[in-house]
Amino acid sequence: MTVELISVGTEILMGNILNTNAKFLAEKCAGLGYEVLYQTSVGDNPERLRRVIRTALDRTDLIILSGGLGPTEDDITKDICCEEMGIPLVEDTAVRQAIDDWLAARKRTNIAKSIYRQAMVPEGQTIFINGNGTAPGLAIEKDGKCAVLLPGPPGELIPMTENQVIPYLGAKSDSVLRSRMIKICGIGESTVEERLLDLIDAQTNPTIATYAKPREVHVRVTAKAPTAEEAEEILMPVVREITGRFPREVFTTEEKETLEDVVVRMLKEQGLLFTAAESCTAGMLSARLVNVSGASDVFRGSFITYSDKAKHRMVGVKKKTLKKFTAVSAETAAEMAAGALAEGKADIAVSVTGLAGPNGGTAEKPVGLVYIGCALRDRIVVEEYHFRGNREKIREQAAETALDLARRVLNDRVV
Amino acid sequence: MTVELISVGTEILMGNILNTNAKFLAEKCAGLGYEVLYQTSVGDNPERLRRVIRTALDRTDLIILSGGLGPTEDDITKDICCEEMGIPLVEDTAVRQAIDDWLAARKRTNIAKSIYRQAMVPEGQTIFINGNGTAPGLAIEKDGKCAVLLPGPPGELIPMTENQVIPYLGAKSDSVLRSRMIKICGIGESTVEERLLDLIDAQTNPTIATYAKPREVHVRVTAKAPTAEEAEEILMPVVREITGRFPREVFTTEEKETLEDVVVRMLKEQGLLFTAAESCTAGMLSARLVNVSGASDVFRGSFITYSDKAKHRMVGVKKKTLKKFTAVSAETAAEMAAGALAEGKADIAVSVTGLAGPNGGTAEKPVGLVYIGCALRDRIVVEEYHFRGNREKIREQAAETALDLARRVLNDRVV
Repeated sequence: MTVELISVGTEILMGNILNTNAKFLAEKCAGLGYEVLYQTSVGDNPERLRRVIRTALDRTDLIILSGGLGPTEDDITKDICCEEMGIPLVEDTAVRQAIDDWLAARKRTNIAKSIYRQAMVPEGQTIFINGNGTAPGLAIEKDGKCAVLLPGPPGELIPMTENQVIPYLGAKSDSVLRSRMIKICGIGESTVEERLLDLIDAQTNPTIATYAKPREVHVRVTAKAPTAEEAEEILMPVVREITGRFPREVFTTEEKETLEDVVVRMLKEQGLLFTAAESCTAGMLSARLVNVSGASDVFRGSFITYSDKAKHRMVGVKKKTLKKFTAVSAETAAEMAAGALAEGKADIAVSVTGLAGPNGGTAEKPVGLVYIGCALRDRIVVEEYHFRGNREKIREQAAETALDLARRVLNDRVV
Repeated sequence: MTVELISVGTEILMGNILNTNAKFLAEKCAGLGYEVLYQTSVGDNPERLRRVIRTALDRTDLIILSGGLGPTEDDITKDICCEEMGIPLVEDTAVRQAIDDWLAARKRTNIAKSIYRQAMVPEGQTIFINGNGTAPGLAIEKDGKCAVLLPGPPGELIPMTENQVIPYLGAKSDSVLRSRMIKICGIGESTVEERLLDLIDAQTNPTIATYAKPREVHVRVTAKAPTAEEAEEILMPVVREITGRFPREVFTTEEKETLEDVVVRMLKEQGLLFTAAESCTAGMLSARLVNVSGASDVFRGSFITYSDKAKHRMVGVKKKTLKKFTAVSAETAAEMAAGALAEGKADIAVSVTGLAGPNGGTAEKPVGLVYIGCALRDRIVVEEYHFRGNREKIREQAAETALDLARRVLNDRVV
C-alpha cells in the first residue's frame, strides 16, 4: 500500500515548528509495511489544499492528513477532503457527547458554538474519539482509496495513532506485524550496516531497517505472518542473530527502553548506588540518569568538577597528578572515579574529563580527546576516546559513552 | 515571490530522521519576505522526483531542493532538475579543484572516480562552493523561474545557506532586509501575543512574527528598505517598543545569543564565579552553562544533590530544615544556595529543588512544584514555581528558569 502524508497549517510551512508528526507517522507506516512515497505540507488555503488532496488521492492508495480539524474557520481539512471524496457530513451524537464530556471534565463554559462543527463527521465512516482534545480523528474509504484525518497537536495525534489508527490500518491487512528495536551504542551506522550486510541483502520477511539516532544506531526487525505467534517465530531467530553480532554494543531490544533506563535497571537489580565526577560533560551524565523516574533508588548525588581546583577539592585528585599528567589524562580520570566513589559513598562511580573545544586543543591532546573512568568497588577501568564534531556533539557523545561504560562494567561485574 | 521546498531522499520519507532542513529553510525564506506555499518530500525515484519538480516549477516562482547531490547513482536531483529546466551540464574546473583540495586536506586517496560527477554543473549558472563537503550548491534561473539546489547534510546546507544562498536571494530583490530576534523567557506565547496585539495587528513594515521555542518565545522583527541604514531606522523603534513591554523577560535581541551566553557574559563582565546546587535538574543547569565555550572563566564546579543526604553532606543543608520543611521547600532552596556559595567558594550560587514526577506529588506539594534560589554574596532570593508537563519538561523548565533567575539577579545586582 502506498502512502502520502499531508501536513496542513502555516506553522510548519513558515518554519515556526519542526514537522515531528510527519516523522512519527512515516516511521509508523514503515512499521506497518506501508510505503510512504510523498510527504507534503500546505497551508490552510482552500484551493491549494484541494489540489494537494486531489493529487495525493491520484498517486497513492492511502493519504494521512494531520492538522486543520479544529473548530475555527481556518480549519478546513475535513470539509475539503470530504468534498473531494464525495462524502456528505452529518452530525454524530456520540462525538457531540464526547465534546460535552471533555468540556465538562475541564469545567469549561462559555465555549463558542463553533466547537460543535467538530461533531460533523463523514457519513458512515470510521471515527476515532479524541481522548486528549475535542476534534475526532476520521478514516474515509471510497473507491479503493483511504483518507485518514488526524488532529495536529502531537499530544492528540500520537496517542490516537498508537491506540486507534494503527489497529485500524493493521486490520485492513490480512496479516499481523511484530517488531523489535535493537538498540546499539558505541559504533556508527555504516559499521552496523556492514556487519549486517548479508542479512540486509537477503531480507524478505522479517525486514531489517537501520536508523541513525543521536549517538546510537537502532535496528528495527519486522515480521509479517497470519498470526502473532507465527510472526514472533519468524522474528526472534533474526533478532538473536543480530544481537549476537554485537555482544558488546546492544543494550536493549525493547522499543521504549533508553540507555539510562538500562543502567538504572541494572543498578537496582544489583543493589548499587551510582555517582559521577563530571568535567567536560558538566552534569549531562547525571542529568540523563535522573531522566529515569525512580532514579533516587540508586542515585544520591554527584560532583561537577570543571576546574583543576574543583577536581582536587571535591573528589581529591592529587595536585601532583594534575600537574604531571594534566586534567585530561587517564590518571586524572582514574583519580576522579576513585575520589567520587569515596566522597559520594557510592558503589560505582563514573568520571569524564576531556577537551570539548573549540579552543584548548594541542597536537598531543587534541579537541575531542576524552577519558572516561569507571570505579566499581576496588576496581577501576579507564578508556580513551577521540570524539568528532562540535563542542555540543563531543560532550553528548562523552555522556552517552560514560553511561554505556557503566552498563558494560555492570554487565561483566569484572572489569 | 512564492516558494516550494523539496527534500529528496528516503531517510526523511521513511521517518528515519526529522526534516530539520525544511524548518531551517522555511524560517530563512520568511526572513527574506518570501512566501513558502508548499513543502514536499520525495525519494530518489527518478519519475516521482521529475513530476514533483515539474509541479513545483508550475505552481511557485522559486524551488529549493535539498539532498541528492552526492556522487552515487542514487543522487539524481541535479540531473533531473537540469533536464526539466533544459540546461546542459558541463564540467567546472573550479569545482573540480575544490573537490581535489577538499580531499587533499583530509589526506583521502583511493576515492571512487564518481566523485567528479559533482564537478558537472549547469552551464552558465550560479555555483556555491561547499566549504564542508564536496557537492557544490547550485542556482538555476530560466524563464522567470529559479531553482536552488543544496546538499542534504545540515552541516553543509546551513553554512552554505547563511553565507551564500541568502546573499544570492537577497540580491534578487531591490530592497534590503534587516531583522532582530527578541528573545523572551518566563512567559508564554499567548501572553506575548496579547501584549503585542496592537503592534501585530498594525504591522506592515517592519513585520512581527512570534515563534514558540522550547521554554522561550522569540519575536522576529523584520524591516525592508532600499538601504541597510533606512531598514535599521524603520526597525529599531519597534524593537525598542517591544523590548520595553517586557523589561523583565527579554534577555537578548541578538539572533545567535542564548540565555546561557548572556549569563556567562554578565558573569565575565562583573568578574564573578558561578556555582550551583541541583536536585531535580541533576546537572542540567550546570551543563547548559558549560555549553558556552570559555565558561571556565566563571565556573569551577557545582553540586548535584539529589537525595536529602547529599543536600546535607555536600552543601550543608541542616537536617532540621529537611525534616521540618522537606527537601522541596523555600527553606531548603535557600540553604542549598548559601551552602553551594560557601562550599564552592563562588560569588553567586543558584539552587534548584522540586518535584519532577510523575510520582511523589501530594495535594500540598504537587508534581511541578519547584523552588529556585539564588545567593549573590550575602543576599538570597528564593522563587516558587509550578511547572506543567511531563518529568522532562518540568526539569527543563526548572533549568531554564534557574539560569534566568541568575540573569535577573545579575541585572539588578540588588535582589
